[in-house]
Amino acid sequence: MYEALYRCIRADILSGRLAPNQKLPSKRALCANLKVSKITVEGAYSQLLSEGYIRSREKVGYFVEAVERTEPKPICHSQPPEAPDTSLDLTGNGPVRFPFSVWSKLQRQVLLDLGEQLLLPLHNQGLWELRQAIAVHLTAFRGMHVDPQNILIGAGTDFLYNLLIQLLGRDKLYAAEEPGYDKIRKIYAAGGVSCIGVPLDEQGVQIPCLSQAQVLHISPAHHFPTGLVTPLSRRLELLNWLWAQPDRWIIEDDYDSEFRFSSHPLPTMYSLDPRGRVIYMNTFSKTLAPSIRISYMVLPGDLMEQFRQQLSFYSCTVSSFEQHTLARFLSQGHFEKHINRMRKFYKTRRNRVLNAIQSCPLASRLTILEENAGLHFLVKVNTRLSDQELQDRLSQDQIRIRTLSSYYHGPLAKEHTHCLIVNYSGLTDQQLEQLEEKLQQLQ
Amino acid sequence: MYEALYRCIRADILSGRLAPNQKLPSKRALCANLKVSKITVEGAYSQLLSEGYIRSREKVGYFVEAVERTEPKPICHSQPPEAPDTSLDLTGNGPVRFPFSVWSKLQRQVLLDLGEQLLLPLHNQGLWELRQAIAVHLTAFRGMHVDPQNILIGAGTDFLYNLLIQLLGRDKLYAAEEPGYDKIRKIYAAGGVSCIGVPLDEQGVQIPCLSQAQVLHISPAHHFPTGLVTPLSRRLELLNWLWAQPDRWIIEDDYDSEFRFSSHPLPTMYSLDPRGRVIYMNTFSKTLAPSIRISYMVLPGDLMEQFRQQLSFYSCTVSSFEQHTLARFLSQGHFEKHINRMRKFYKTRRNRVLNAIQSCPLASRLTILEENAGLHFLVKVNTRLSDQELQDRLSQDQIRIRTLSSYYHGPLAKEHTHCLIVNYSGLTDQQLEQLEEKLQQLQ
Repeated sequence: MYEALYRCIRADILSGRLAPNQKLPSKRALCANLKVSKITVEGAYSQLLSEGYIRSREKVGYFVEAVERTEPKPICHSQPPEAPDTSLDLTGNGPVRFPFSVWSKLQRQVLLDLGEQLLLPLHNQGLWELRQAIAVHLTAFRGMHVDPQNILIGAGTDFLYNLLIQLLGRDKLYAAEEPGYDKIRKIYAAGGVSCIGVPLDEQGVQIPCLSQAQVLHISPAHHFPTGLVTPLSRRLELLNWLWAQPDRWIIEDDYDSEFRFSSHPLPTMYSLDPRGRVIYMNTFSKTLAPSIRISYMVLPGDLMEQFRQQLSFYSCTVSSFEQHTLARFLSQGHFEKHINRMRKFYKTRRNRVLNAIQSCPLASRLTILEENAGLHFLVKVNTRLSDQELQDRLSQDQIRIRTLSSYYHGPLAKEHTHCLIVNYSGLTDQQLEQLEEKLQQLQ
Repeated sequence: MYEALYRCIRADILSGRLAPNQKLPSKRALCANLKVSKITVEGAYSQLLSEGYIRSREKVGYFVEAVERTEPKPICHSQPPEAPDTSLDLTGNGPVRFPFSVWSKLQRQVLLDLGEQLLLPLHNQGLWELRQAIAVHLTAFRGMHVDPQNILIGAGTDFLYNLLIQLLGRDKLYAAEEPGYDKIRKIYAAGGVSCIGVPLDEQGVQIPCLSQAQVLHISPAHHFPTGLVTPLSRRLELLNWLWAQPDRWIIEDDYDSEFRFSSHPLPTMYSLDPRGRVIYMNTFSKTLAPSIRISYMVLPGDLMEQFRQQLSFYSCTVSSFEQHTLARFLSQGHFEKHINRMRKFYKTRRNRVLNAIQSCPLASRLTILEENAGLHFLVKVNTRLSDQELQDRLSQDQIRIRTLSSYYHGPLAKEHTHCLIVNYSGLTDQQLEQLEEKLQQLQ
């Protein structure tokens, strides 16, 4: 306890709140005043004395020393403790192309045009103009008919999942795909809900395995990590499951549907469901950059109303500056152009990576599994190595890559052994060349 | 069920996935293929037929009509449904001064200097340079000795509270000030934890009323809404409570400590506690703008380590663009200048509002209660009106203001009746003049 009092008086001396030569209160007065014991005050004064912050004059009392008021120094690290990883990253976390010059121009215009208006707290669902622009985009790109009033913008899908837990309730059983994006189940666990894994067959989640689950979290447009696209027949079966009980929900995560390289995508589950039990989610992490933290969800009418009644005290988590910039980026047509450019860019890149794999010395032992969609595909390796050994071997070659098995919580489906997940979206041009060279050298 | 199938085929026709004059599969084939009943397929085909999307040729089958491929239109609202409020806002939600030109310059520089580096996902605790700059700021302004490795940046304090629930656990009893910032208890409730209200005396929370609480959420530097500053004696008592049991925590919300208009502030609870059981929180909402969603917390060593082990899968919620901009704003000294300018600006504004109140015709019935700190003070009104009537009366006069009683969940302390909370920070110059006029006309 004396330590806290000592710290307080020392801070007061260093900050000048207690001036040099000022008399300190007597020990007795301080005890009474602070309601602390005599031992506490004596301990504090004696430590201050021994460190030279105060001096004692016999029978008069204690006085503040004229210490040099050097501000306490912050703990300084010139370098972050985490060393950068220089591996070829095939996990999809690398940099992407970004429309810097347009973005910079829009940022400047937003500041100039809007001024103080930018400083007002935003509507808790997000900027109206951005929600409108997203609704228009969803119509054009996904054939969805969405009211901007049903859109909610948030700082990343992690955040939105947490909001959904609060909205749908912790008393429900959640289900997510197995294998699946590992974060999803971690977030549900941290949010205090039970979440089971649902195994997949070649069409998507196996409905008989849903057991008592009430909330099903899926990515039917392009499953991560298998790349599976859920066909219409399974989608209809899923709707049948959804409608069979009153309190069931589907969370449809449409995270990279913009990057389909052939034919039109199937309509979303959200569009197929006239009963308002599908929650649609998407993000700008894949289409713009993972470091721009803007995601959104479309809540069906009743759920949106419930949000307004129960959770409207939450502030929107995305800065108004960036929401205005993104709204203009969308409504002025830059986003559409950007996606089209990125689609071409990724298609070329995809073909180069596919060619490099197919023409490498080990090609006969590699099978490519893909569905012309999204930013990753699978390579099945004919090998006696275990999945861990395979990943370690590649790691020694400075290739950072994950296997399908690493996305399993439970037992691994046999057809999913020895499958590497190739996410080529984060490679720089230089890294792509390095990868091509490395693949040629494989023995 | 037929409705979902109908929606899907219609979407395929409108998107061109099904071409004009293309033959549709026979009903029987579709039933088998999609594993749905004959009634479902018949219902879907008959609705498509009646709406002219397909035509039937007897004994041959169904064909896609050459419908005009008008994209479905998004639901359009030119105006957000929420009407803007034109009242004089004394609740603190108005616009504030913002260093637009410096910010704009830094934004541009960040884009030019960093380029693709900006697109990389950030460390989940936030940008290293920003954490460093915050540590330096906390030392200079609060005399705190903080390691940037213990700082965690998030998109607003709402978000950070939710993270703390996940970190400290839902099995604990939380306690918050009564009266207090009403959002805090709502967030704890939505996060699934029990939170009690702790009544205040003239020094802060009453420790005997903490009952079985293990996590105490307080704002000792400047309590909202009463304006109370917790003196050293109560702080020491709080530390005594904190240390008495191994699993107790204090969350110290230091939300507007930058705006103290006389003398030095007391050291933070975080600084007084050598045992690492105080979590420090602050935000840039008050010092920059509420629409910039950047807050941070300082986690003591053990808790930070627990975050790294249990919750490091979470992505940082603040955009890298704005973190870089803010980091430069701080490290280049702009923040310090801005705060000093704002402090002067608010001091002048505060004095004008105080003068206007003290010189109005009803001044004899008004008592000002304040502690020279923060962006709000209290006015006690000598009136026979109830608090609700008082608030309604002012609302008719187009003054948006809240009473202390509106921040109570339980029974109201007698000395807190008829207290208006005057938050002058959001008034524009014009609104301030309007307020002065209105006060002169009071009868």
